[in-house]
Amino acid sequence: MAGISPDDRLRVTYRLFCGEGENPQDKATDIAYEQTVELPAECVGDAITERVVGRVESVESGAGRGGTAVISFSPEWIGNDAAQLANLLFGNISLKKGIVVTGIEWPQTVIETFGGPSHGIAGVRALTAAAVNRPLLCAALKPVGLTADELGELCYRFAAGGIDLIKDDHGLTDQPSAPFDERVRCCAEAVARANDATGGCTLYFPNVTGPATSLDRRLEVAGKAGCKGVMVSPLLAGLDSLQHISRETGLAVLAHPALAGAFFGENHGILPEVLLGDVFRVLGADGVIYPNVGGRFPFDDRTCQAINERLRGDLGNIRPALPAPGGGIDVKIVPHWLSQYGPDTILLIGASLYRQGDLTQATRRLVDTVKRCAG
Amino acid sequence: MAGISPDDRLRVTYRLFCGEGENPQDKATDIAYEQTVELPAECVGDAITERVVGRVESVESGAGRGGTAVISFSPEWIGNDAAQLANLLFGNISLKKGIVVTGIEWPQTVIETFGGPSHGIAGVRALTAAAVNRPLLCAALKPVGLTADELGELCYRFAAGGIDLIKDDHGLTDQPSAPFDERVRCCAEAVARANDATGGCTLYFPNVTGPATSLDRRLEVAGKAGCKGVMVSPLLAGLDSLQHISRETGLAVLAHPALAGAFFGENHGILPEVLLGDVFRVLGADGVIYPNVGGRFPFDDRTCQAINERLRGDLGNIRPALPAPGGGIDVKIVPHWLSQYGPDTILLIGASLYRQGDLTQATRRLVDTVKRCAG
Repeated sequence: MAGISPDDRLRVTYRLFCGEGENPQDKATDIAYEQTVELPAECVGDAITERVVGRVESVESGAGRGGTAVISFSPEWIGNDAAQLANLLFGNISLKKGIVVTGIEWPQTVIETFGGPSHGIAGVRALTAAAVNRPLLCAALKPVGLTADELGELCYRFAAGGIDLIKDDHGLTDQPSAPFDERVRCCAEAVARANDATGGCTLYFPNVTGPATSLDRRLEVAGKAGCKGVMVSPLLAGLDSLQHISRETGLAVLAHPALAGAFFGENHGILPEVLLGDVFRVLGADGVIYPNVGGRFPFDDRTCQAINERLRGDLGNIRPALPAPGGGIDVKIVPHWLSQYGPDTILLIGASLYRQGDLTQATRRLVDTVKRCAG
Repeated sequence: MAGISPDDRLRVTYRLFCGEGENPQDKATDIAYEQTVELPAECVGDAITERVVGRVESVESGAGRGGTAVISFSPEWIGNDAAQLANLLFGNISLKKGIVVTGIEWPQTVIETFGGPSHGIAGVRALTAAAVNRPLLCAALKPVGLTADELGELCYRFAAGGIDLIKDDHGLTDQPSAPFDERVRCCAEAVARANDATGGCTLYFPNVTGPATSLDRRLEVAGKAGCKGVMVSPLLAGLDSLQHISRETGLAVLAHPALAGAFFGENHGILPEVLLGDVFRVLGADGVIYPNVGGRFPFDDRTCQAINERLRGDLGNIRPALPAPGGGIDVKIVPHWLSQYGPDTILLIGASLYRQGDLTQATRRLVDTVKRCAG
């Protein structure tokens, strides 16, 4: 299930894998108590049971000892707290076994509270001035260990080649080799210089992932350097970082999936399309990076398409977000991904550009290919 | 492997489960690049390879297609950033398959930077004035949905019974039923009243998990209300919350494992003793809650003992931390856990006290039992 909940309760669908002595009905009831009151039924009065305990809306038995359950929760216990949303979805039950969150229907109040992307697909596209008939192209700035000047030089070359977006590698934080402030200044200046020279509109999104206490300062530095957006890894920096950036700044935000794979267990976890699609979007991601099928990560085609659908599909009045498949996209088969994923996509190209040596030439060829295919 | 690294590099041991066409040596090399430069070897110059890329220190083949590898990383890329530590350990490789972090040897510089617990076992014990020959007893304040006054009343009863610690349920955040400030004030006042009446020394640790932007204010409210410590769920609030509380306040900090179970996959993840033991301790947890064997979670005896060892064992000059097993400890078998886990433990008792109705009587019986067994 996905979309908006019919009754303003958070409706979560769980696929259940029952162990010896378990059955889907009891396992669902256990989840409903564990995720709310954390007490056995006999210790909870009627009023709290009615207001707080999750309601098992349906349970269906499946193959073997498995099943599917829908449990609904009052949004009152989430409030405006991304941490508490994650806790309600999978906090304590993460420590159990055989439970996969496969779908969420969102209460209107939760949707409105978190608010989703502040720019969305159209907003990010407008920042880049890319035509609506083609995907955006994003290069990754790497590796960690280069100086701020060296990273700035790479930025210049990508921008001179006409790339739409340049994002920091997610491992670039505030290391002595390229401290955050210096890196952002060098890279933003280099991109501005290249844009001046070419009349282009390349954007640079620095990685702001780091200690929560440094987030506001880094966002300010990025904004003052002229950046229109940033990248953050929500599972490293705290899930509320997405919400904070999208609600408190004018910056677009690209979410990186570092650490997210811990949740993608086959028999226990949260489906990638729910975490990277639904949750990241609702919390405010304008774009979400994920490991594309056929690259160096094991995502399959179904998962990639499902993430795309969750990011772009109707979800009350919140904006659609851009899928950003990456992790081994080869420039040679970019036309394939164009037809596969359509224009409302960010194609993230890393090593495949670096391998070609002359970054500006390599970028220009890629941009030309994409424009030609789209045209 | 555990303890201090011999050469000031972060040495991580990985258990590898190889899929079709994989072998342990190549999988280890892939991790070394993926977690640092995120580029193929041919795109990385010698200087960066030497300084940045992880070094595969050893690879041993195991049963089937599996194996064990040790990879070392320069601490330069971590700095004082808890998010970057998590990223280096498991960020991108979380999105791959068949990799389990089974051990860490810590560089002295990383140990010194993060600093570990600010109170440690002796410090927390001193706050409670409990004798050194017995474990500390901790009650959980629940359920969500009660008013601040009602939660305060529960606090009074636990404190009147002589419990050492009362912690908020980790689902109590800042809900309208009991807003944070009001809850902390009511609960801290109730505990102080009970302490005045009994001459006891019960502590109340409020849950400060929530948006990062609210953390400092919540810590200030807790401190002003007289709390000597707090609880936080690092994986909900951001890993650096532990470090922030332990380094920037005088408060003790109890870490809750919500969401941590996502990492405990059998063939992919981080071993519980590494995440809850090593990492939480190094980042500053004075005590770490985990789901005890035999309760309502599937941890086994080996895992519980391993967590205890990692929390209490020698680790350079950082303080030992208190294991806090919970999640279904029955008061009836508390003597068993006393002999099993020894005095440097927090026994966390929830439902088993609530089930008895009269909380003060139930608590007093529990405290008496523990004092008698220890005596």
